[in-house]
Amino acid sequence: MTRERLYLYDTTLRDGQQTQGVQFSTQDKQRIAKALDGLGIDYIEGGWPGANPTDSAFFEAAPETRAKMAAFGMTKRAGRSAENDEVLAAVMNAGTGTVCLVGKSHVYHVETALGITLAENTENIRASIAHLVAQGREALFDAEHFFDGYKANPEYALEAIRAAHEAGARWVVLCDTNGGTLPHEIARIVGEVIAAGIPGTHLGIHTHDDTGNAVANSLAAVDAGVRQIQGTLNGLGERCGNANLTSLIPTLLLKEPYASGFETGIAPERLQGMVKISRLLDEILNRVPMRQAPYVGASAFAHKAGLHASAILKDPGTYEHIDPAVVGNARIIPMSNQAGQSNLRQRLAEAGLEVERDDPRLSRILDRVKEREDQGYAYDSAQASFELLAREELGQLPNYFEVERYRVISERRRNAKGQVVVESEAVVTVQLQDGTKRTGYFKNEHPQDLHDDGPVNALWQALKTDLGPYQARIEDIRLTDFKVRITNGGTEAVTRVIIDFQDDQARRWSTVGVSPNIVDASFEALHDSIRWKLTRHGV
Amino acid sequence: MTRERLYLYDTTLRDGQQTQGVQFSTQDKQRIAKALDGLGIDYIEGGWPGANPTDSAFFEAAPETRAKMAAFGMTKRAGRSAENDEVLAAVMNAGTGTVCLVGKSHVYHVETALGITLAENTENIRASIAHLVAQGREALFDAEHFFDGYKANPEYALEAIRAAHEAGARWVVLCDTNGGTLPHEIARIVGEVIAAGIPGTHLGIHTHDDTGNAVANSLAAVDAGVRQIQGTLNGLGERCGNANLTSLIPTLLLKEPYASGFETGIAPERLQGMVKISRLLDEILNRVPMRQAPYVGASAFAHKAGLHASAILKDPGTYEHIDPAVVGNARIIPMSNQAGQSNLRQRLAEAGLEVERDDPRLSRILDRVKEREDQGYAYDSAQASFELLAREELGQLPNYFEVERYRVISERRRNAKGQVVVESEAVVTVQLQDGTKRTGYFKNEHPQDLHDDGPVNALWQALKTDLGPYQARIEDIRLTDFKVRITNGGTEAVTRVIIDFQDDQARRWSTVGVSPNIVDASFEALHDSIRWKLTRHGV
Repeated sequence: MTRERLYLYDTTLRDGQQTQGVQFSTQDKQRIAKALDGLGIDYIEGGWPGANPTDSAFFEAAPETRAKMAAFGMTKRAGRSAENDEVLAAVMNAGTGTVCLVGKSHVYHVETALGITLAENTENIRASIAHLVAQGREALFDAEHFFDGYKANPEYALEAIRAAHEAGARWVVLCDTNGGTLPHEIARIVGEVIAAGIPGTHLGIHTHDDTGNAVANSLAAVDAGVRQIQGTLNGLGERCGNANLTSLIPTLLLKEPYASGFETGIAPERLQGMVKISRLLDEILNRVPMRQAPYVGASAFAHKAGLHASAILKDPGTYEHIDPAVVGNARIIPMSNQAGQSNLRQRLAEAGLEVERDDPRLSRILDRVKEREDQGYAYDSAQASFELLAREELGQLPNYFEVERYRVISERRRNAKGQVVVESEAVVTVQLQDGTKRTGYFKNEHPQDLHDDGPVNALWQALKTDLGPYQARIEDIRLTDFKVRITNGGTEAVTRVIIDFQDDQARRWSTVGVSPNIVDASFEALHDSIRWKLTRHGV
Repeated sequence: MTRERLYLYDTTLRDGQQTQGVQFSTQDKQRIAKALDGLGIDYIEGGWPGANPTDSAFFEAAPETRAKMAAFGMTKRAGRSAENDEVLAAVMNAGTGTVCLVGKSHVYHVETALGITLAENTENIRASIAHLVAQGREALFDAEHFFDGYKANPEYALEAIRAAHEAGARWVVLCDTNGGTLPHEIARIVGEVIAAGIPGTHLGIHTHDDTGNAVANSLAAVDAGVRQIQGTLNGLGERCGNANLTSLIPTLLLKEPYASGFETGIAPERLQGMVKISRLLDEILNRVPMRQAPYVGASAFAHKAGLHASAILKDPGTYEHIDPAVVGNARIIPMSNQAGQSNLRQRLAEAGLEVERDDPRLSRILDRVKEREDQGYAYDSAQASFELLAREELGQLPNYFEVERYRVISERRRNAKGQVVVESEAVVTVQLQDGTKRTGYFKNEHPQDLHDDGPVNALWQALKTDLGPYQARIEDIRLTDFKVRITNGGTEAVTRVIIDFQDDQARRWSTVGVSPNIVDASFEALHDSIRWKLTRHGV
């Protein structure tokens, strides 16, 4: 049986950027584009060249991809030619082989929002797509408000997309722009569009999640015949988000009739990267990953119910719809740590800690990791803190020094000249193994407004002022990033701080601290960093 | 046209409790049950009496509800009578008028997980349901793994549910326990079940969101004929969660063919409570509300794209599938560097600030937003800070009070008993408009290790201790989330803090502060919050 080709079009970098609170840097966009390309997405929509500086900069230095890079824009405006529309020209100037232009297909929007005649709008679509084709570009037409437009006036909605199709658009994309269309309507309308003469092999679907049906609407459209799906990673996008490709891709590759019926650009083994690419996006956006996300969430294969967990031990298929490893995820069974032991030995070996299979300390380490994760710690992003925990259980962590006390003050006041100044100072006292105490003190020397680096920096400077015999080993540690999240620790909200470090040998490591007090969580991470550096020097 | 009755069955208190990290107290359960009852849910499943102490305690003191309260349990085990099964007896002893029993309908689960014959399983179902009916209870049968079981062996799956139906079950609930079934399969199988003789008026649907289709699967089942939907608030539930009633209810009441075709227990005006009930659950669970949630999310009606915002000004229907007020939500036109003057005027109008088109102050506000965003501020997630900035430019921001100074100390030390304690204290002095000064002081009263809420909380408590004439207006402000990100402010790294707040009128607002010093950035956001609240009170 020949499988039909189904194309995936990612718009994380364009529609995803419409999410409230999301602002990608050019560098962020490059990282995401590379990750999408590695996954095997067919099209990557990079942004709207000319609409904002970041998007223009991205296209100027777009990464080389196997995927087709698409620039987004809108159809030419009425009263000028496609050649003379400067908005369209900026899009063309990005030089991508593929260009996607959005245009109107809803009578009300043409007449009221644009204030032009239906004939003018149809001509704008035709001429814009023809211009793309004449310039040798692959053309897509995003039919904005298509489903609402079709419900209001099917004849005109069809006229608009027919203009694009006949002008040579490779794809006519049916957009549920406002997100209110339900699956049964999508199925019916797509069927009618195909019956009206636009083949499904030239139709795409673009949905939003305003009723929680964006994924189902995409599948309904494929069932009805469309052969391109537009969506975003983690369902990023304006309002409730776009169709979530992170959910759709595993369904398309693993579930029938899609798995047998279609071929996509994604090789089955790439599915194992789904969790990773989902987390990458969250990390770039500094978002807490959604635990309940289909396929990729940390809880997606967590079996809490006692009845389920015991059945899972006999046969995982009893309460799992797929094998979590297929999408790079892992089963979580609170009452059994059997599954984790081989992972753990692997991770310890990477840190130079060889432990025999069935060593009872392995399950003690797993228990402590579990217990600490319940408190809010996150060891996936803080390997150095994990190593310290493991070394402690294995009896391989020297007690280098004890922190006796710290105290940090931040203050805003007016100085003698009446200027507002902000300043921080900290003192840290440690006790060394020989029983002697060392105290470090730091005070910001330039307390002008907004030039104080704050309490965490003050504590860090004070902590590393004088650690006696260890001092030489730690002087080259530099903080490179500092991430803070509010998370649940047991029953209450706590602050999780993850700090990234680097030294002169270009070693990079990360530590984690958790506390309701952000300063105390930070101090824990700073303390871990110094201890880890000392273990790496074999001290 | 007579509308058919569609029943809603909430299992937040039972299946919702299977969510990783969720553990309701008896009091939590009572609050949620009352809220569900106020909404107009038909059935409230309170838990499994006898399975854990909280559930037993809840039924002992279950609130009086108009909704039917249901106890959950499982069918009797083989080798004993329904009367002599002590697990079932504990369920019956809860004394609810409605009882829902889960049982097997999948051959593999009967033979492998239970290890009994198919005939024994059928008899367990029949006898258990007959026992409920004989005791005068309304009986539900949750057919576990029904869809997977039907795909594996349709004859036996039908035999199992027919046993329940014929023994007098008011409802046979078809469960997609593992969550892997897709909408087209749900539609087909439900159709076949009805064709096999079990009427849709006696069928329920219970779905999970493992492929992101729980809502669509529920709708597909209703389309195919079932007349009861089971789900949870906010889609709480094991793994990826259950069908989200917070999404389903507005769709059923507002969208066709459901709105005209069905009557539910929910009066249309109750829809306005959707946002509130969704937030209530998050508050009880101390979870950050999902911004992108359909209908109820804070971003569900946020219009960031410049083109959308200008159309929304002409007619909100252009980019909204429903009026946000209908579900108790509100439109947001976020500020960001994509925003133009029309976004700005709309946003100002919503804050009660009418500014004429082409007023020169509009471009001054945009310039200041741009300048501040270059310094690291992010106004599209911090509407309240944006409003303050705009009011200032418009000359409509009273100078309520000036912050003279603040000072905050965090300390870790050993107390007299040798215990490690962490404590924070803060002092804040402000000068009121009449020239008088007020000083607030806060010190953590319980300085045990890890129970100190840190410097930001200490500053907040001190700041809102005594603001003279404003005090009554600000007492109900609560912090609901705190987000920190390192970002670039001009040439150097700065800390951006965004804090979310809420008050007793369920108003939600967010403010932003930026500084290299995290404490100073936080203080700025706290200060903005109080000023914004005062503007909303017309002070």
